[in-house]
Amino acid sequence: MINYFTAVKNRLEKILAHRLFWRLTPIIALAFTSVAQAATEEGGAAHSAAFTFLWIAVLLIAAKISNLVEKFGQPSVLGELVIGVILGNMALIGIHWFEPIKTDPIITFLSELGVVILLFQIGLESNIAKMKQVGLKAFLVATVGVITPFVLGTYVVGPWILPGLSSNAYLFLGATLTATSVGITARVFKDLNKLQIPEAQIVLGAAVIDDVLGLIILAVVSAIVTVGSVGLGVITWITAKAILFLALSIIIGQILAPYLGKFFAKIQTGVGMKLTLAVSFGLFLAFLAQMIGLAPIVGAFAAGLILDPVHFKYFKDPQVVEDVKEVISEYPDQNLKEKMNKALEHHSHRHVEDLIEPIGFFLVPLFFVHTGINVNLQTMFNLPVLMVALGITVAAFVGKIVSGLVAGKVHKWLVGFGMVPRGEVGLIFAVIGRSLGVVSEEVFSVIVIMVILTTLATPPILNYLLKKMDNPPAPQDSVKNSPSAV
Amino acid sequence: MINYFTAVKNRLEKILAHRLFWRLTPIIALAFTSVAQAATEEGGAAHSAAFTFLWIAVLLIAAKISNLVEKFGQPSVLGELVIGVILGNMALIGIHWFEPIKTDPIITFLSELGVVILLFQIGLESNIAKMKQVGLKAFLVATVGVITPFVLGTYVVGPWILPGLSSNAYLFLGATLTATSVGITARVFKDLNKLQIPEAQIVLGAAVIDDVLGLIILAVVSAIVTVGSVGLGVITWITAKAILFLALSIIIGQILAPYLGKFFAKIQTGVGMKLTLAVSFGLFLAFLAQMIGLAPIVGAFAAGLILDPVHFKYFKDPQVVEDVKEVISEYPDQNLKEKMNKALEHHSHRHVEDLIEPIGFFLVPLFFVHTGINVNLQTMFNLPVLMVALGITVAAFVGKIVSGLVAGKVHKWLVGFGMVPRGEVGLIFAVIGRSLGVVSEEVFSVIVIMVILTTLATPPILNYLLKKMDNPPAPQDSVKNSPSAV
Repeated sequence: MINYFTAVKNRLEKILAHRLFWRLTPIIALAFTSVAQAATEEGGAAHSAAFTFLWIAVLLIAAKISNLVEKFGQPSVLGELVIGVILGNMALIGIHWFEPIKTDPIITFLSELGVVILLFQIGLESNIAKMKQVGLKAFLVATVGVITPFVLGTYVVGPWILPGLSSNAYLFLGATLTATSVGITARVFKDLNKLQIPEAQIVLGAAVIDDVLGLIILAVVSAIVTVGSVGLGVITWITAKAILFLALSIIIGQILAPYLGKFFAKIQTGVGMKLTLAVSFGLFLAFLAQMIGLAPIVGAFAAGLILDPVHFKYFKDPQVVEDVKEVISEYPDQNLKEKMNKALEHHSHRHVEDLIEPIGFFLVPLFFVHTGINVNLQTMFNLPVLMVALGITVAAFVGKIVSGLVAGKVHKWLVGFGMVPRGEVGLIFAVIGRSLGVVSEEVFSVIVIMVILTTLATPPILNYLLKKMDNPPAPQDSVKNSPSAV
Repeated sequence: MINYFTAVKNRLEKILAHRLFWRLTPIIALAFTSVAQAATEEGGAAHSAAFTFLWIAVLLIAAKISNLVEKFGQPSVLGELVIGVILGNMALIGIHWFEPIKTDPIITFLSELGVVILLFQIGLESNIAKMKQVGLKAFLVATVGVITPFVLGTYVVGPWILPGLSSNAYLFLGATLTATSVGITARVFKDLNKLQIPEAQIVLGAAVIDDVLGLIILAVVSAIVTVGSVGLGVITWITAKAILFLALSIIIGQILAPYLGKFFAKIQTGVGMKLTLAVSFGLFLAFLAQMIGLAPIVGAFAAGLILDPVHFKYFKDPQVVEDVKEVISEYPDQNLKEKMNKALEHHSHRHVEDLIEPIGFFLVPLFFVHTGINVNLQTMFNLPVLMVALGITVAAFVGKIVSGLVAGKVHKWLVGFGMVPRGEVGLIFAVIGRSLGVVSEEVFSVIVIMVILTTLATPPILNYLLKKMDNPPAPQDSVKNSPSAV
């Protein structure tokens, strides 16, 4: 039977030679179409796991195709958001295949896991010393970036552009404008290899503090709406809880990490252990953050910040590094040894990041495509709502851009625009407001459009600012002389 | 504030010095306990994503701790199964913390995804040429390994040990004994680095064919139970569908893979693209297999078998390989270059496997711990049921061990025991039988115990056989002369 397969295969290959294959692509596309159609119709109750496998494959391939935007100088995250918007709104032109993705709870979870992994990766690439350097600036940026949009939304643009609502509705509208969604900005900096510049560090730090402040505002605003007023004690307790979480997790984490490393190295020193420890630590802090009422991504970022290559010193290097060292060890040339060690050191040092990278490749695009998929373009078809939303969006932009002014001697626009994207947190506020009865359907749509516009507009703007800021690349010679500089 | 953190941290570190830290571990354990308790009580409706983060971290760390069994010469999969059984049955001693894991649909999905990734990895490490060599033997082993337990269960041990049931009940009992769950065996071979020996290849091939045969038997038996009889046409159609799927996916896959590689390399040649293509392909075939009525792992295995390093020739090597090559390129020593290229070739060649490995480290243990967690030890407390189950389990063992007899000139016991583990497929049969009303609660418990025993007993037996079979390790000199042999 197997020889028959080979014969058929060879025959088919001959038939398909000379790029005739490409003429067949419409047929293949048709076959896929009918499978997808069947998939949608069957509903996916019995085979839900299998359909989720399909959706993951579709989202990953769509994400990669969308990365073509890199050829036009745009960060790949923009492509992923846009392809998501396209897939999620195909129903508008009568194609309903991708609708099940929106309601698949497992895809939703995987995308949340994706953004947790992303912030953990970004935490790993940041370090505490650098964050300390920008700590004060980040605090100032966060404070201004929370107060300005809150005041603008609650007392200025809200009442002016949406007259006649209750003061509680304006309070909620202002609150939704406060919290930066750091995922988008961080991805842009990461895509363009700029995570290490001070602007990126300020934005990352400010976004974390921002989340804490946003949490406090949400708690206070909710209390005002439900109880009518709120005591200083409650505000203090919420604030203390959030600050304590961050402080304690960083302090205890830094103390425990080396002991944990030593303890687990006694069980196994392989790469599997290294990866498991790192990922589990990130997920555990994400869980703790959520328990305390913060976004899980804040915990994941803190975990990444705490973990340091030095905590993994008891674990093995990548196999390839060991292999190369073995070959080199037989050669007497001291100069070669030094050069090679320098080239390899970077890879030993980066090993945890490298191990997590494939998990990131697998999960992170799911978050961004999924974010795009849940953008409902129909909300934009109502002209009055759209006009109001544009006004609120301007307030959202202005409120964050001014926060860049207090960032000190850095590229102020970059910091300001970096703080602009709103995301899940804003939407969570809106959902809570709706459940409390203060946020109407109309205001909810306005908030959704604001989130869409801040999210989609920021990547190209940051990209433009970063490319303009760039000095011309370093001269070729210096690169040649340092082989490890890649 | 940050300086205050540092001060507190230093202070704390001093206090904790001299291993005093270890005296604190009970307190830390207590803190964790109360968090876990709170978690369980709160139910996890609102914070379900966060709790799933916690469960993933707990399962991963538990899996790694369980890998201590390696120090006692056992394969790590056994440790993962056993720690799962322990966590899943803590309720028996009054600890209910881990109960939510059993019903968490996301953990269930991730564990299914884990076994799909495992079979995909195993497919990547196998290759079609080798599978062809063992094709006939695998077919014989599969056929004998399906017919013997089916006949034993339906006509011999079933009626003898469980007298008075309907003939349909015996039919279902026999059917549940047919399908090997390849995950366990494959992990043992992989843990001990034995995937390339002919016995492993025969078992893998036979397990795939086995699944096809099992599918046919299930369809036929279900038809007999519901309709009362079954036409030859239906049997032929089911059989043809399954064989066509495997044949076509292998043929079309082999033809398309290079074109797809070329096409996607035009978008991006980075490691992200390489990984995405591979994973998406595996998930897509897993989906197709399920659509056709086969287990998703069969599709994932076929996908791994089809993908070959050569399909990724347009994509980049790992960065470390490029860096090392750059250092070496400046050295005139031709001998060194050759040695280094030889050492690096293996890593370029293995790159896709290496990229998927971290995803495997993350997801595969979830499957095995989760399998263990769902083992309900209470089913074993009913003595009459347990006695019957032991009888059926003996039939399950004997039925598969005899299949090793037709495996030709290889270690027959190894092949036979390799086919023993039953898993999801047997349980799926049992669930279908129960829903059709032919499998009673008692018979269901018997089947569950049979699955537990075949699953838990096989890893140590295979481990013993493999270690006994091993020749003494190759002399030290030959290893030293070939640096790439690691």
